[in-house]
Amino acid sequence: MHLTRGLHRAVQLNPDRVMTVDGTRTRTFAEAADRVARFAGALRALGVAKGDRVAMLALNSDRFSEYLLAVPWADAVLNPVNIRWSPAEIAYSLADSGTKVLLVDQVFAAMLPAIREQYPDLTTVIHCGDGPAPQGTLSYEELIATGAPIEDARRGGDELAGIFYTGGTTGFPKGVMLTHANLFASAMGSLATGDLFTPGGSYLHVAPMFHLADMCGWLTEVTLGGSHVFIPSFDPVATLRAIQEHRVTDSLLVPIMIQLLVDHPDAAGYDLSSLACIVYGASPIAQAVLERAMKLFPNAGFTQAYGMTELSPVATLLGPADHAAGLLRSAGRPAPHSEVRVVDPEGNEVPRGTVGEIVARGDHVMRGYWNKPEETAEALRGGWMHTGDGGYMDENGYLFVVDRLKDMIVSGGENVYSAEVENAVAAHPAVATCAVIGVPDQEWGERVHALILCHPGMTVTAEEIRTHAKTLIAGYKAPRSIELVEAMPVSGTGKILKRELRERYWGDTDRQVH
Amino acid sequence: MHLTRGLHRAVQLNPDRVMTVDGTRTRTFAEAADRVARFAGALRALGVAKGDRVAMLALNSDRFSEYLLAVPWADAVLNPVNIRWSPAEIAYSLADSGTKVLLVDQVFAAMLPAIREQYPDLTTVIHCGDGPAPQGTLSYEELIATGAPIEDARRGGDELAGIFYTGGTTGFPKGVMLTHANLFASAMGSLATGDLFTPGGSYLHVAPMFHLADMCGWLTEVTLGGSHVFIPSFDPVATLRAIQEHRVTDSLLVPIMIQLLVDHPDAAGYDLSSLACIVYGASPIAQAVLERAMKLFPNAGFTQAYGMTELSPVATLLGPADHAAGLLRSAGRPAPHSEVRVVDPEGNEVPRGTVGEIVARGDHVMRGYWNKPEETAEALRGGWMHTGDGGYMDENGYLFVVDRLKDMIVSGGENVYSAEVENAVAAHPAVATCAVIGVPDQEWGERVHALILCHPGMTVTAEEIRTHAKTLIAGYKAPRSIELVEAMPVSGTGKILKRELRERYWGDTDRQVH
Repeated sequence: MHLTRGLHRAVQLNPDRVMTVDGTRTRTFAEAADRVARFAGALRALGVAKGDRVAMLALNSDRFSEYLLAVPWADAVLNPVNIRWSPAEIAYSLADSGTKVLLVDQVFAAMLPAIREQYPDLTTVIHCGDGPAPQGTLSYEELIATGAPIEDARRGGDELAGIFYTGGTTGFPKGVMLTHANLFASAMGSLATGDLFTPGGSYLHVAPMFHLADMCGWLTEVTLGGSHVFIPSFDPVATLRAIQEHRVTDSLLVPIMIQLLVDHPDAAGYDLSSLACIVYGASPIAQAVLERAMKLFPNAGFTQAYGMTELSPVATLLGPADHAAGLLRSAGRPAPHSEVRVVDPEGNEVPRGTVGEIVARGDHVMRGYWNKPEETAEALRGGWMHTGDGGYMDENGYLFVVDRLKDMIVSGGENVYSAEVENAVAAHPAVATCAVIGVPDQEWGERVHALILCHPGMTVTAEEIRTHAKTLIAGYKAPRSIELVEAMPVSGTGKILKRELRERYWGDTDRQVH
Repeated sequence: MHLTRGLHRAVQLNPDRVMTVDGTRTRTFAEAADRVARFAGALRALGVAKGDRVAMLALNSDRFSEYLLAVPWADAVLNPVNIRWSPAEIAYSLADSGTKVLLVDQVFAAMLPAIREQYPDLTTVIHCGDGPAPQGTLSYEELIATGAPIEDARRGGDELAGIFYTGGTTGFPKGVMLTHANLFASAMGSLATGDLFTPGGSYLHVAPMFHLADMCGWLTEVTLGGSHVFIPSFDPVATLRAIQEHRVTDSLLVPIMIQLLVDHPDAAGYDLSSLACIVYGASPIAQAVLERAMKLFPNAGFTQAYGMTELSPVATLLGPADHAAGLLRSAGRPAPHSEVRVVDPEGNEVPRGTVGEIVARGDHVMRGYWNKPEETAEALRGGWMHTGDGGYMDENGYLFVVDRLKDMIVSGGENVYSAEVENAVAAHPAVATCAVIGVPDQEWGERVHALILCHPGMTVTAEEIRTHAKTLIAGYKAPRSIELVEAMPVSGTGKILKRELRERYWGDTDRQVH
């Protein structure tokens, strides 16, 4: 199990077939392999040694795919950076992982001064965008043009494939260490259901590639030897056009993207008949949206995947037959590679229908958090990955996710940890105490909402809080709405009772009670 | 990756669905899991400890499936015995692997005295057949009825799953050590093509279960949570009836079985429309047979698998689309989990179209031969499994197997090593020198044929040679025909030139020249 194996196989079988399509630029498998070998050679010449981390901060592109292959080819470790992060968060993750080499595209090159200021140890920056490389960066294309190709290091199996940073409950991101075997377990196990992906097909990268959801799709497609179509980031028209033009067969989307596609006034004008498989994750899909999506994509099977970065990332799958059976509120059943249980605080399985914490076990479970032995031991206690999600399982093994024990908000498909936002909001001089919760939102699924108790005689507006927060954390984490309160409901030990706060917004809904 | 994982998953998801159908006996997943846990408990009570080998000598049955699950459940190692072997060969393999516990059914119980005589260290024999347990054996059903269930040891990953004996070039069988990860690599990698197996389907065990080809099918079906139908051994009517009665969707057959099915006068009277996937191996299929088989099984896709026990066992696959394209003479293209190359004696890849030795690399490659470090190092030199098969690859990555470098005959789907037969034939008092080769045979694909140079003044008949050989080796290895010769073509170093001998029978055919 090497991330690069599928590339070797494809070069042997179909060297002249197109592997990547990015705008008007296409590359065959043979061309891609040559570029990967050269870029790996360039990395080695730059001093990247076995196990060194190489980061990438960029929108989707064919070069992102080359990066995912060239880094293991050079015996190094991936570190794809969350494109929604602030420079402070990026600098933190680069420093935490000791990453010395960063690839950055033209969109994010503007963040370089701020990142460098906060992380001066960044020695090498490679500009992988279009246009000339800015001062202080190396040109990706020049490195490939001049790099001497090297042999694939054949990094694989239980060796580290990458460090994937994810939001932390403590307010700091944690680096999830995944091996090649972890990533293959999830990809191949999901594929074994027979519901996913089209052999010889074409996969559209529209969800951000730094995220493990799309990366799992990437790995599956590489393993099958299919082709990849890239659009830089989600845009309804670009997505519809790409599907029609390249006869795309498979893609991973989040429900909000599906909704924006079905809502687009021109959607019906495109030929979307090639799409055979849509995987979606992060949140359930509404019945009304699904019905319209099934009309728009007449030949597509829909599969919901539930999981997390620590699970590489798939734990359960809700397949097309489950969708047909109307089981939309479930996150599906354990994937073939994953054991999933619902347990009480002592780790004992609870009866079916009873809410507890969702835990998972299998070869897809992360090796651990980078440099965080205590958090690792806590998360993996008893040999099970503790997801922090509350849920229950029905008699037929269908899992229902009902609450997030870790106090996390899922907004527009992104995980936002309340603690992190609370830290940022509380740093505002007018704020005495605050509590951040997710509240229902038509567009985002959940919206980041802050309840704020101000210092006596002071006040603050939503706009001020938002502007302030964005200097510290990513924009998508900043509260989209606030409520000034006179007092916070607290427990006997002084802990804010968030459940009470949430109930005002959610009431007796699915999210709270089953 | 545990052989038992799929059972746990199925018990969680569909405890009351039927897992096994053996004649009129059916068992649900919950029942099967209970029996497996009890039999594992019984094995432990009998003193079976971590890593101990437990053998089984039996025709196909639901108990064979339970054995495959209970042995790893008890933290032990499988050793399925070739049912075509002589007692001497069986005793050799039990002694070589230090196996103390043997399961035997009513068909093979008669061999026990001869096995025990040659291997007195066999301490425990469990009778897993129907009817009462013969003296000196324990009853499988009694052990299950009285055994206390134990927790699954969760043996898996890189731990040894089994020792699978295969014919040896030196005349002695070699024990191929395969890990759980090896077996999963082959099963999941083959499944990834999308051409194999039907989720929620039903698999018919008709090829012998001791053989890795059927065991790979078993593991795939266990992983998918489908059901298993067993017939003791191949019989055209029983096969046709089982497919119709149990709506079988998938099976593994060898070409001679397919031929016997299509040739059967009553075949057309059965409803065989459920069959969706037929995997066949061991030899190519003739165009005429395939065409008739496609008519008999109107909904079945045909896939040829090429490999060997040492490759767990799949290296290449020729899928339904390849069959439709008329590529029947090829063994297919490398499976997603397998790298395959054709190399010269120095291990360098030869140009496409040039004959060399077929080698393979990947997670499916055996750990090694049991207690045979030198043979292991030789077979795995350079990190590639050397198959001993000659072949070439075309420009599109299709592999063609043209000759067996290891001097092996494939007769009726079984591997026969010439050296082993030559040893047996040469032990006859009339034989001075002999050479054993495979010759073309309508029924068997290849027939074991002996060229014999007798001692002066002596002679021998085919029947005498055959009777004599069968006292030493399995019946299928004994020569089916002989030719008395006056002289053998030998090389300068005195080595018999088998190529010359073969050419008399094969001429300028595919097997020799491409």
